[in-house]
Amino acid sequence: MSAQLDLDSILEFTINLALEAGEMIRAGQQKRFASESSNEDEKVNSVDLVTEVDKAVEAFITKKIKETYPDHQFIGEETFKGEKVTDEPTWIGKSHQPSKCLTNPIDGTTNFIHGFPCVATSIGLAVGGKPVVGVIYNPFLDQLYSAAKGKGAYLNRKTKLPITGKGKPLQSLGHALIAIEYGSSRSAPALPSKVKTFQTLAASPELGGKMCHSLRSMGSAALNIATVASGGLDMYWEVGCWAWDVCAGICILEEAGGVMFGSKGSSLSGEVDSDLLTGRKYLAMRGIAPTSDESTLQVQQRFAKEFYDTTDEIEP
Amino acid sequence: MSAQLDLDSILEFTINLALEAGEMIRAGQQKRFASESSNEDEKVNSVDLVTEVDKAVEAFITKKIKETYPDHQFIGEETFKGEKVTDEPTWIGKSHQPSKCLTNPIDGTTNFIHGFPCVATSIGLAVGGKPVVGVIYNPFLDQLYSAAKGKGAYLNRKTKLPITGKGKPLQSLGHALIAIEYGSSRSAPALPSKVKTFQTLAASPELGGKMCHSLRSMGSAALNIATVASGGLDMYWEVGCWAWDVCAGICILEEAGGVMFGSKGSSLSGEVDSDLLTGRKYLAMRGIAPTSDESTLQVQQRFAKEFYDTTDEIEP
Repeated sequence: MSAQLDLDSILEFTINLALEAGEMIRAGQQKRFASESSNEDEKVNSVDLVTEVDKAVEAFITKKIKETYPDHQFIGEETFKGEKVTDEPTWIGKSHQPSKCLTNPIDGTTNFIHGFPCVATSIGLAVGGKPVVGVIYNPFLDQLYSAAKGKGAYLNRKTKLPITGKGKPLQSLGHALIAIEYGSSRSAPALPSKVKTFQTLAASPELGGKMCHSLRSMGSAALNIATVASGGLDMYWEVGCWAWDVCAGICILEEAGGVMFGSKGSSLSGEVDSDLLTGRKYLAMRGIAPTSDESTLQVQQRFAKEFYDTTDEIEP
Repeated sequence: MSAQLDLDSILEFTINLALEAGEMIRAGQQKRFASESSNEDEKVNSVDLVTEVDKAVEAFITKKIKETYPDHQFIGEETFKGEKVTDEPTWIGKSHQPSKCLTNPIDGTTNFIHGFPCVATSIGLAVGGKPVVGVIYNPFLDQLYSAAKGKGAYLNRKTKLPITGKGKPLQSLGHALIAIEYGSSRSAPALPSKVKTFQTLAASPELGGKMCHSLRSMGSAALNIATVASGGLDMYWEVGCWAWDVCAGICILEEAGGVMFGSKGSSLSGEVDSDLLTGRKYLAMRGIAPTSDESTLQVQQRFAKEFYDTTDEIEP
């Protein structure tokens, strides 16, 4: 089925869709802030306007995809029942309305609410459970990440990813810049277990730590993955986000020489994680130069093992 | 002395200086990445090129300031001996060479090394220990934050800060989006104490936490403060950075209606922190709408107290 798809034309469609959706997000934010400036009743007003923008962007994306690709399938937040992604072309997304399943209209909703500029629309297409087209667009910083399978990954359509140059090595976990997120599960055991991992990554060796270069949190799964693809982050670890948060990112990451690992268990066993896309456990790693003894994938697997050795198996 | 300064013309000078310095940083990064792509000996080469860019930008900024304002003082990393900032106009900065003291040529050096796009040049002028001009420019995202005392603060010269609208309230610490950083002190007691605070901020009430909306880490003090000024973050807490990291940001923050608090002790006592600029302990807070019982500053002080109640007094 994948061979029958014109990925160039689908990518072009998806880029234009993301740019238009981004413009809606940017305009919606300006309207909301202007309204807040003139309205004392900020709370109700703000939530209403966030929902309004989210729904409008979602409806726009759904409509465009259905018009252009009427035979394609959708998997979205409201209709997701734990099913596997089939062999059919499937747009992976998020929806607040049943049977309107599409991409993630606004990734980084908390950022959008606050006005923190790490907000993106994320649109991905998977075939046979594998992402084949991915576009992530941040309308506030005008950063467009795009890729199609076999065609490479790009920032703003012209800068090939990774921007840091091919063949960048990684000396140790201590040399890594790693994205982590606190997420929405703030109770035991998930939160204390996550924070324990953050401390182990950051702490000096005499505290039993890895003393990585540092930890970053942008609050957007899509932008974290895109930044790993760009080479600006070495890794991004997440437990709890969804297929619609990562589908576009996985395509961009893989086209930039990176790899997405799944759960701790599957990653350490070295097995292919057949549930990778929908498994809600992700470790994104950038392309790394091979060593004299190891291929790029072997180096990536070694760092995934070392990373996961610092964590418990956390359930979302 | 401050009254004699033409802040409009100094601001214009500083903006142009930051834009030129930013272009040097951007060009230096491109050169470095191109070099890494073609050079196996990445380690030595990369460090050399980072140092080269840092020194070149620093020399450029120093030279321009000395040429234009030969009577002004400088305080920088290499010459700083714990002295107070005097009443004389003083450019606050960072230097790797004694007696060449200037602003912070590259804030977010770890990000610069990795290619993570939160990198800025930060140039501040203080008079009587108070920042009166501040410019922060991120050349990778083309974000320019600027302010002069009494003249307002702006993003990209035209969008008045905060971008989120005036009079945005803050309902509780649980509603806050807060920037935190792991910093460079990775041993006991600083690191475990910081991480304990991060957990308290993020955790749900049944774990004794504040369950704030979330935590963010961009890895640049200047950009964290600028984003608080913009309204995109509610607070930013840091122990361990330096006057040259915060001088420009404080001016931008104050002109946007925000406030910078110092150490836990001075903040909770309600005293003016005379050592604020050089005290290495900072809590930036955005402008917040007054309540029926409290002024904006009183609301800010209440949240500072509640925030600091979650922390130990950490030494840098």
